Amino acid sequence: MALDENALIRAVTAAHPAPAGVLGIGDDCCVWTPRGPTCLSVDAIAEGRHFTADADPRLVGRKAAAAALSDLAAMGAVPVGAAVAISCPARWDAGAVMAGLGAELMRHGCPLLGGDTTGADSLVVSVTVWGEGDPAAGGRLLRRSGAGPGDLLVVSGPLGGSLRSGRHLTPEPRLAEGRWLARHGFVHALMDLSDGLAADAPKLATASACGCLLLPEQVPVHPDVPDFSDTITAALCDGEDYELLAAVEASQWPTLQLAWPFAHPLAVVGWLLPEPGAWMEDRHQRRVPLAMRGYEHR
Amino acid sequence: MALDENALIRAVTAAHPAPAGVLGIGDDCCVWTPRGPTCLSVDAIAEGRHFTADADPRLVGRKAAAAALSDLAAMGAVPVGAAVAISCPARWDAGAVMAGLGAELMRHGCPLLGGDTTGADSLVVSVTVWGEGDPAAGGRLLRRSGAGPGDLLVVSGPLGGSLRSGRHLTPEPRLAEGRWLARHGFVHALMDLSDGLAADAPKLATASACGCLLLPEQVPVHPDVPDFSDTITAALCDGEDYELLAAVEASQWPTLQLAWPFAHPLAVVGWLLPEPGAWMEDRHQRRVPLAMRGYEHR
Repeated sequence: MALDENALIRAVTAAHPAPAGVLGIGDDCCVWTPRGPTCLSVDAIAEGRHFTADADPRLVGRKAAAAALSDLAAMGAVPVGAAVAISCPARWDAGAVMAGLGAELMRHGCPLLGGDTTGADSLVVSVTVWGEGDPAAGGRLLRRSGAGPGDLLVVSGPLGGSLRSGRHLTPEPRLAEGRWLARHGFVHALMDLSDGLAADAPKLATASACGCLLLPEQVPVHPDVPDFSDTITAALCDGEDYELLAAVEASQWPTLQLAWPFAHPLAVVGWLLPEPGAWMEDRHQRRVPLAMRGYEHR
Repeated sequence: MALDENALIRAVTAAHPAPAGVLGIGDDCCVWTPRGPTCLSVDAIAEGRHFTADADPRLVGRKAAAAALSDLAAMGAVPVGAAVAISCPARWDAGAVMAGLGAELMRHGCPLLGGDTTGADSLVVSVTVWGEGDPAAGGRLLRRSGAGPGDLLVVSGPLGGSLRSGRHLTPEPRLAEGRWLARHGFVHALMDLSDGLAADAPKLATASACGCLLLPEQVPVHPDVPDFSDTITAALCDGEDYELLAAVEASQWPTLQLAWPFAHPLAVVGWLLPEPGAWMEDRHQRRVPLAMRGYEHR
């Protein structure tokens, strides 16, 4: 049975009325009036790479939406809209994928304003999201490039074990945390962790023309990582954590730690260095080259 | 061999420097400052549905970009940016797909500002484009819903034969034509033709709370449609024409026809009706129900 594109679009349109003043699904484009600088990201997940052929289709949709929203969180942005392209074989329930996707978007106040559906040999869900800076942060959007040497690297929650435990299907985009961080001028740079801290921290450092030193013993390990395993490697390398990584002015750390209003404590995981390169502290507090790599989707 | 995501992103970034004041590829999101109401569309093409497994990868990329840009043309918009999600098996040359896509975007002045790459079992290319109303048109964006009964339906070029001839791989997004039409207040509604006039004209009519009457004998037939075939059905039903369909105030038609500055003449193909339904004129100028359906991608 082929995907009934028109029926799917009708169902999605009914479930997602556009906000006042916004033209949603049904025309050649959606139309909205931005209030200022706007950020946008596209994120695709594919069968056999980001989920298995036997995954719950609602969770696949949820993951596609959450992974995309995490990119808005990583800018400290407020979601404005989303558009989805779903390429779906007949063996997948496209309606269930869309239901999971739509529910996740709605949970975060992000209207679904556009979409395209096609048939395909394997399921691919591509989600475009866009947003604006929070007026409470003066519209500020946080990039990876704003940090400098001597900044502390902090993460918004424990890391590791996401793929093994199945937690990777229900990532929690840290939108509120990102908005809060954007309101504080001593937070200099921000990104989200999708490929593991060992891969992602060097990206933030490079974007800020710095090197980085990771402190493996201080990285908070997620309870999903099994006891008596190599918990530190898991926390640094597993990928798909979708926590935030921020670079903050070191002298402001005590202030930040006290003011942080969220359930999971912020944790210091490293420093930015004036010279390039990726480094870590070994058990004797010596600086050695970073031996670990992140997770690569193949 | 798996797709080398980082190498591909580096090559694409080098080929697509962001315009001044715009943050392009390399952060969690791209960032730009809109000048007014903004329109956005996502368009996906999939192996086996929109192109065959032996298609030239550069043409696949070109088609993905052109089909997306055609949605901006259909609003009369000026392109502002694009983001691509490519899900690519190892048997496809992802670099060639991206080269064709990037060249087509550049040809139309649309910078590539974001992207995501994944592996996949079959090739899917999803392109998000966004744009703004032309300042010369007062920022006006044309929707499907602005027309009324008694408006004429006109098309921007000849139709049919696109799939059979291979022309579907090199569609020409009618961006200049769309911008020109948006500058004229007597043009009430606009869309692009992707599923065939017989399928698409009723969509414009319904969005404008009208019915439509098509004039099959007047539809301009593309030279790609073979002689001695059912040329009229081909012109109404073949799909993937990517010409524009506009609803214009009937009394202004002579003015519009004279002023139209483009190579292909505008052609009248029907009327909008006060009552719902899709109709056509038969050879005896009698109104009969529209017997033809458009093209459905399966």
